[in-house]
Amino acid sequence: MKFNITQPNQALKSQLEHKINHKTKPLGSLGMLEAVALQVGLIQQTLSPQLCHATMLVFAGDHGIVEAGVSPYPQAVTAQMVLNFLQGGAAINVFTKQNNMHLSVVDSGVNYKFSPSLDLIDAKVAMGTRNFLTEPAMTLAQCEQALTRAADIVDAKVAEGCNVFGFGEMGIGNTSSASCLMSVLCGLPIEECVGRGTGLDDAGLAHKTNILAQAIAHHHLISSDAMQVLATFGGFEIAMMVGAMLQAAAKQCTLLIDGFITTAALLVAAKLQPEILHYCVFTHCSDESGHKKMLDYLQVKPLLNIDLRLGEGTGAALAYPLVLASVNFLNQMASFESASVSQKI
Amino acid sequence: MKFNITQPNQALKSQLEHKINHKTKPLGSLGMLEAVALQVGLIQQTLSPQLCHATMLVFAGDHGIVEAGVSPYPQAVTAQMVLNFLQGGAAINVFTKQNNMHLSVVDSGVNYKFSPSLDLIDAKVAMGTRNFLTEPAMTLAQCEQALTRAADIVDAKVAEGCNVFGFGEMGIGNTSSASCLMSVLCGLPIEECVGRGTGLDDAGLAHKTNILAQAIAHHHLISSDAMQVLATFGGFEIAMMVGAMLQAAAKQCTLLIDGFITTAALLVAAKLQPEILHYCVFTHCSDESGHKKMLDYLQVKPLLNIDLRLGEGTGAALAYPLVLASVNFLNQMASFESASVSQKI
Repeated sequence: MKFNITQPNQALKSQLEHKINHKTKPLGSLGMLEAVALQVGLIQQTLSPQLCHATMLVFAGDHGIVEAGVSPYPQAVTAQMVLNFLQGGAAINVFTKQNNMHLSVVDSGVNYKFSPSLDLIDAKVAMGTRNFLTEPAMTLAQCEQALTRAADIVDAKVAEGCNVFGFGEMGIGNTSSASCLMSVLCGLPIEECVGRGTGLDDAGLAHKTNILAQAIAHHHLISSDAMQVLATFGGFEIAMMVGAMLQAAAKQCTLLIDGFITTAALLVAAKLQPEILHYCVFTHCSDESGHKKMLDYLQVKPLLNIDLRLGEGTGAALAYPLVLASVNFLNQMASFESASVSQKI
Repeated sequence: MKFNITQPNQALKSQLEHKINHKTKPLGSLGMLEAVALQVGLIQQTLSPQLCHATMLVFAGDHGIVEAGVSPYPQAVTAQMVLNFLQGGAAINVFTKQNNMHLSVVDSGVNYKFSPSLDLIDAKVAMGTRNFLTEPAMTLAQCEQALTRAADIVDAKVAEGCNVFGFGEMGIGNTSSASCLMSVLCGLPIEECVGRGTGLDDAGLAHKTNILAQAIAHHHLISSDAMQVLATFGGFEIAMMVGAMLQAAAKQCTLLIDGFITTAALLVAAKLQPEILHYCVFTHCSDESGHKKMLDYLQVKPLLNIDLRLGEGTGAALAYPLVLASVNFLNQMASFESASVSQKI
């Protein structure tokens, strides 16, 4: 599998900066929106970027590690929430609808047989991963299959006209998966990477930390072998996010990165193709312990800090209007010259 | 002038919390949006609040203090920017249009005679304020007139069906006005209240601080006499924001508070009617030095921290989708019961 991601050509940078700086506003006064406008202009290689057919891909998968008691919710909730997505009742339905994003739900590996549905993309690799406390969550072949299937989904959406993707996930147990990926890939002690997930109490948190420390010690992996790390600790939904992100960046799309689990997928993708970071807008800092450290590791600053920790891509959907506003001010605001507004004395 | 603002009845609080907590999401996982949902439910006294006919009121006025060289832009920019608003070329035009807010521009006291326009509300008190370095910016009668006219504008919008207001402003020199209001009303040294405004350099900032320190020493006011403080240092656009905020809260509307200058107006309003704070959503923390301290003084946490310092109500317009999302999740998400999703073990 080949993903060829290069840094966007920087030749347009000074022209974009000139356009931004001549809008009728004090210099720099739109703060982070100006950085996003510049970034999207460079991604699309134009002074007038457009965000088209914005699509939220929500990948769902089940995790063998839940056998070890790492989540306060039963595994059945993964499938129940997928059904909730299909019925329009989840947070991600509400926020994508409000903000005019298309929503596609992908069965990456849920332990449930869904009836065929127009709104559900069947890309199931298996009925959930194996328990990574004792064995790798998936085989390398399964991991590669997940990446390829996700890349195909992205290709189909790009063919429909999409050039901006949000990435979200659902999978009971997947904060455990993300914590292990973070610990190995960032070289941080597991204690700094584990959080309460959907709502563990202190005892639950201590148990989860202990289990994940055992798992990491058992597999003894190195960060440079990102595919093996992903296959060992990843969920199928996380592996698919990796493939989807890589392909979206290879296709010069803008990537809206959500919270803790989505960013863990990006950590993997960035180990494989570091230039992917040029295509990423970091939409929020999750209240899940560890996400802030992940963002610090990547040396990026997110748009929102509003204590979200829901997942599903909700942070990306909520921040999308800010990304859209960045492109809109670049295209729609008057310049000092066009509006005959005086500049600084 | 009487504004009668009372704390919303809290009887619905536990029912609202129950509704929020039974949505299909981990407890508390929508963070600050949950607090906004509760707040708007209490303001509207319903479990199913609706945000209707969202309206951004942008008040514009000129300031005598610009004679003292406190801004790097000429005074003419105030009128030029009002014309830019009317032509649709300013940032606030772009963001209100994107986020489906109505925009009304109010001439509160610009030093320019505008041709009549359907899109401009003429509420001019005078052709700008006097220079508060040597005399009060306006008379108490002018100040009361500004409050009354603004309250009438709010009444008209409420009659059209509006129940959520953003407040914005334009006025070269008005960070000087806001800094003095902050210093006197919060009891903070002027040095902690002064910032670079539209872009002063170090020498300009030192000059501005020196001028404002002189003005404060000259008038020697006490914080408890908020109307006199407002008349002395306020712009007409700030006084109108005070009146508009007070009336909007008296009419049980939700108030979207923008940046440094808008929050200075709210400081005045809250001195007059402290219960107004129950009606306020703080939309962002400005990059203008002093705004964070104002928010700390009010003990509130804003939704956005994206280094904005443009004014015009842009932060409120950009944060509005988050406020709407708060109401939408409350109304549209399924509950654990309705979606048959299992709860914590």
